[in-house]
Amino acid sequence: LNFGSDNLYGVHPKIMAAIAAVNMGPVPSYGADEWTAAAEQALSDVFEKDVKMFFVATGTAANGLSLSAMAPSHGAVLVHANSHMSADECNAPEFFTDGAKLLLHHSSDNKLTPQQLHATLTGFLNHAPKPAAVSITNATEFGTVYQPDEIRAISDLVKPRGLKLHMDGARFANAVVGAGATPAELTWKAGVDVMSFGATKNGAMLLEAVVFFDLALAEEFNYRRLRAGQVISKSRYLAAQMLAYLKDDLWLDCARHANAIATDLAAGLAQLPGVRVVQAVEANEVFSVMPRKAYVAANARGAKFYEWPIPGVAADDAHCRFVASWNTQEKQVTDVVALIKDVL
Amino acid sequence: LNFGSDNLYGVHPKIMAAIAAVNMGPVPSYGADEWTAAAEQALSDVFEKDVKMFFVATGTAANGLSLSAMAPSHGAVLVHANSHMSADECNAPEFFTDGAKLLLHHSSDNKLTPQQLHATLTGFLNHAPKPAAVSITNATEFGTVYQPDEIRAISDLVKPRGLKLHMDGARFANAVVGAGATPAELTWKAGVDVMSFGATKNGAMLLEAVVFFDLALAEEFNYRRLRAGQVISKSRYLAAQMLAYLKDDLWLDCARHANAIATDLAAGLAQLPGVRVVQAVEANEVFSVMPRKAYVAANARGAKFYEWPIPGVAADDAHCRFVASWNTQEKQVTDVVALIKDVL
Amino acid sequence: LNFGSDNLYGVHPKIMAAIAAVNMGPVPSYGADEWTAAAEQALSDVFEKDVKMFFVATGTAANGLSLSAMAPSHGAVLVHANSHMSADECNAPEFFTDGAKLLLHHSSDNKLTPQQLHATLTGFLNHAPKPAAVSITNATEFGTVYQPDEIRAISDLVKPRGLKLHMDGARFANAVVGAGATPAELTWKAGVDVMSFGATKNGAMLLEAVVFFDLALAEEFNYRRLRAGQVISKSRYLAAQMLAYLKDDLWLDCARHANAIATDLAAGLAQLPGVRVVQAVEANEVFSVMPRKAYVAANARGAKFYEWPIPGVAADDAHCRFVASWNTQEKQVTDVVALIKDVL
Amino acid sequence: LNFGSDNLYGVHPKIMAAIAAVNMGPVPSYGADEWTAAAEQALSDVFEKDVKMFFVATGTAANGLSLSAMAPSHGAVLVHANSHMSADECNAPEFFTDGAKLLLHHSSDNKLTPQQLHATLTGFLNHAPKPAAVSITNATEFGTVYQPDEIRAISDLVKPRGLKLHMDGARFANAVVGAGATPAELTWKAGVDVMSFGATKNGAMLLEAVVFFDLALAEEFNYRRLRAGQVISKSRYLAAQMLAYLKDDLWLDCARHANAIATDLAAGLAQLPGVRVVQAVEANEVFSVMPRKAYVAANARGAKFYEWPIPGVAADDAHCRFVASWNTQEKQVTDVVALIKDVL
Repeated sequence: LNFGSDNLYGVHPKIMAAIAAVNMGPVPSYGADEWTAAAEQALSDVFEKDVKMFFVATGTAANGLSLSAMAPSHGAVLVHANSHMSADECNAPEFFTDGAKLLLHHSSDNKLTPQQLHATLTGFLNHAPKPAAVSITNATEFGTVYQPDEIRAISDLVKPRGLKLHMDGARFANAVVGAGATPAELTWKAGVDVMSFGATKNGAMLLEAVVFFDLALAEEFNYRRLRAGQVISKSRYLAAQMLAYLKDDLWLDCARHANAIATDLAAGLAQLPGVRVVQAVEANEVFSVMPRKAYVAANARGAKFYEWPIPGVAADDAHCRFVASWNTQEKQVTDVVALIKDVL
Repeated sequence: LNFGSDNLYGVHPKIMAAIAAVNMGPVPSYGADEWTAAAEQALSDVFEKDVKMFFVATGTAANGLSLSAMAPSHGAVLVHANSHMSADECNAPEFFTDGAKLLLHHSSDNKLTPQQLHATLTGFLNHAPKPAAVSITNATEFGTVYQPDEIRAISDLVKPRGLKLHMDGARFANAVVGAGATPAELTWKAGVDVMSFGATKNGAMLLEAVVFFDLALAEEFNYRRLRAGQVISKSRYLAAQMLAYLKDDLWLDCARHANAIATDLAAGLAQLPGVRVVQAVEANEVFSVMPRKAYVAANARGAKFYEWPIPGVAADDAHCRFVASWNTQEKQVTDVVALIKDVL
Repeated sequence: LNFGSDNLYGVHPKIMAAIAAVNMGPVPSYGADEWTAAAEQALSDVFEKDVKMFFVATGTAANGLSLSAMAPSHGAVLVHANSHMSADECNAPEFFTDGAKLLLHHSSDNKLTPQQLHATLTGFLNHAPKPAAVSITNATEFGTVYQPDEIRAISDLVKPRGLKLHMDGARFANAVVGAGATPAELTWKAGVDVMSFGATKNGAMLLEAVVFFDLALAEEFNYRRLRAGQVISKSRYLAAQMLAYLKDDLWLDCARHANAIATDLAAGLAQLPGVRVVQAVEANEVFSVMPRKAYVAANARGAKFYEWPIPGVAADDAHCRFVASWNTQEKQVTDVVALIKDVL
Repeated sequence: LNFGSDNLYGVHPKIMAAIAAVNMGPVPSYGADEWTAAAEQALSDVFEKDVKMFFVATGTAANGLSLSAMAPSHGAVLVHANSHMSADECNAPEFFTDGAKLLLHHSSDNKLTPQQLHATLTGFLNHAPKPAAVSITNATEFGTVYQPDEIRAISDLVKPRGLKLHMDGARFANAVVGAGATPAELTWKAGVDVMSFGATKNGAMLLEAVVFFDLALAEEFNYRRLRAGQVISKSRYLAAQMLAYLKDDLWLDCARHANAIATDLAAGLAQLPGVRVVQAVEANEVFSVMPRKAYVAANARGAKFYEWPIPGVAADDAHCRFVASWNTQEKQVTDVVALIKDVL
């Protein structure tokens, strides 16, 4: 009954098989192999546009390195206060950008709005950093999803002011499924310049990439990636994952499954007296508030899900996060709902 | 006939099998799994001492993060000019240390000597950075190997002055075999405080770790690793590699094979008229000088090995590097020697 | 009628005379002169404790370098959102600390409270930076003043958790006068470890210093100052300023004058219909809200003071800052009050 | 008899008078005053070209900030190993550039040559930083002077490769006098993009500036200067120095005096048996080798000049630096020569 995170789950068998399939004699290293080239092409096909792709080791590195190509060290990046890069990556954004500043915004659904961004940009004073980029997360850390027009509205605001637009796509597959839009519609067609493309949470072993839609921003990126210790020597093993991940829409199938599990879980939780589902379930996460005693008891009896502290929750309530993965089973849903019902 | 690099070769079957064996349902992420703990213990056993181990994604990151724990941003690290961190890692040392300076030393065999270090340390002026650490590479980038007493001599010089000692062990297995010493004798018993422990070049898929012998230096290391985007979420897949790598001395068997191949290759090359082997072959690399025409012709006919430019080589000669791997075959040696003989 | 800032005003004649008095033949540079040593001693006398003092060029540098001695690059510094280092120094805190993060707090009077800090420190998650320091400003950017017991309460909260305490004293003289406490009571006796000691706003030409009460933190500070390009070669000209500034309490006389001017100005403004003084006037600044039309008209007629945008002010009102200096005259107060009355 | 450094000497009376002359009531701060604008115009007149000028506090800051506008953090700057930024500024270049690397070159006269730079640029490997800029010092730290054609030769080599050219002009006035060329001929007409313009060593109190000939490089410079804590609030006091420094060629008169003193000193030393002048005296410095015993004895008897250790000097000899200033007297020359003669 483990809903702790999607990154707890293993590697999809098709991806594991693909890794094994490239295990052979000498192959060019540092990304000069044929599979890495094919993976970039496969992403270009998925996005209906020539992209530049660079594998990195982690989502944190993908985010930080993305920003480093968009913001100078005297710049500012506008983000949500609850975004992964703001809340969960230590000082990685500052590190990778050589000291740029994150300017934090708040909203209950974890999405940025043009209104908030406008207020920040027009409130800038003489001695502030240079506004350089906006970063949004899709799906957000609260399981909500930006629609293409929401992204476009942000882009329309900030592009004329010279800012670049980044998307943290650690759960991009879930967003694509949740939005019912194409990858292209959710990214460059809506104004996204660079994205962190994450697959590790959705069935890969270690597969994160920085994807450039604005190819000019990629020009010196290999220097940045190298100095950050993010150039994987045996690149073929990542490329094989990417090829399997994208082939025949495996990535979307995995996300579709996870999202469906989350939807079912939300429905089950919503029926429980004293439990509220507090965010729209548009991807693979469910956020709910339940009596703290029930939370503690459920965990004690083996249900794994985390309290996710936010302001404004009553002291005897717990704000909880459930994450569904590509391999979470329907039975886990019915079991965890039954268990929580039991402890309520 | 590929002697381009050891990192071109694939993953040892035992390591690949170990990866597959941990592919299962939910497992704690970010290193909280049982295999990661077991891998740290296995390293402690190998080194005959409790160590702290942190997986990272690349050797460059291992080096940079190691230095970050040893040198302040206003500090200096004494290294060889041909060391990997000086010559092959872009500005990664500066990046990870927030701007520390590498002070470069020269020698024909790529080893640092106490005499050189002494000259640097006593020549320091008022306005120089603070000498903070020394980093040595074992085996060196030229295939030579430090013996324990050579390391101890460096340690004896710099420790009383407050400097820390780092070892870049990207080819540590080859050094252990080459030195005929134990891992402990080559490291902490000789004064090494922190090392980059590399396995990717010796049969792993992606397996690099920072290993602390001085445990106090590890105290805040997880913050450093996180902000550098080097915390691998599905740590178990790296841990499985480490466990298989160390089990039954697989790592040393692989290195023994590679070193033996290199020795044979050197013997074969040395017999060719006009070809000189210019470094002691103590690990898995052979450096030789041959007529440039022969180098070009051999490569054109399918022998892969790199010219490695150094000063002092005649214009019509090429200084060449051959690297043997865990999976290089003896027949490749006889074939490449025959081919070079043919083109001479 | 210039209340724009205290740094618009010139240099006190006694300080100018002191500068001229040290203009002579060869004198040791980089702080090795006798006056620099005397200035450090004079500060030690003022603070009733041996301190270490380092001249720097600006208040921003004093703040940033102070933090660099207290927080690692993976650390966090807890500050007020309106503090100078948060709002008015571009990315200097991130720059000088090599990427530490400022964690922002809010309050209407610009003071931090133990309650807020406690909430931040107990809310810290696994992947956040290490809480390393708290920085308070005295007098604050809103002209309010921390009393010794308020500082002590913060210190008592954070010191047991291993955090250091910094004070931005850009207007420290005004705080000393405003608090009616001794320099020692407002700093190290209340738990302050390091301070930015500013004199430029209070009658000096260029005189900022980092003052260490915790001498251990100063140990490697000269390296930090040097790498930041903040070691002034002809230090005697700064030292002469400091000696004159402290001599016979000139600094406190200047601040007493400025604070009195501000008090009078606040009294004058408070009597005007439609004008509200919205902060306690405890130092040399007055914050008031007036009809925007009046603000615009007053400025158009030659009264210089700035709108200081903050949330929650009605659109047709202006939140305005007036700053009094050591050389602002009483007549300027009566004139500006009369002028504003006239335009209302 | 103090030849320790030119920065030991005081402020020229005309410059001191200019400082006093701007000491009056409220004046715009942070460089918005009329004198700062006039100083920029005066420099434009001197250089026969519209320049952008930014005051900073120190020569180290001028160098570091200059580089930050020319080299990315993944870049490399080619410099002489004995240059001030390499040898005397701790890790300031790395700090200000966020981690760029200095690539060091050697020569006996402290000048870079196109041949050396060409070797570095063509020897660059795959994993090296991006060559971004060259920095030369004029006059050099060894008192030699680049002629315009020497600078042009460097520029011609590196500009087509996309590198920028910086000049450290800490002793630029001495170079102008020594080269017998105009300021324009020695800088932008020869390809210099950015320079550190130093006046502190030549009679100012605190006067260093970054001067941009390539105005595009200056676009975001104020952000850089601010985040580095290098924006002087009471800018008028620096501007007044600059105006007086340039007025009626005071700066060149001061340098002419200092250079003449150095020439006389060199002539005097050269006549002494056992003393060799080992560099061409083209500015205000003299380097000579004398018996160590004489060096020690001369210093003991009150002659102040420094040993300047370099490789290749016999153990019983001392390699010594003498620096002449705007205010060094001819009698000091005759006295120090007599004294050294006496102790030989």
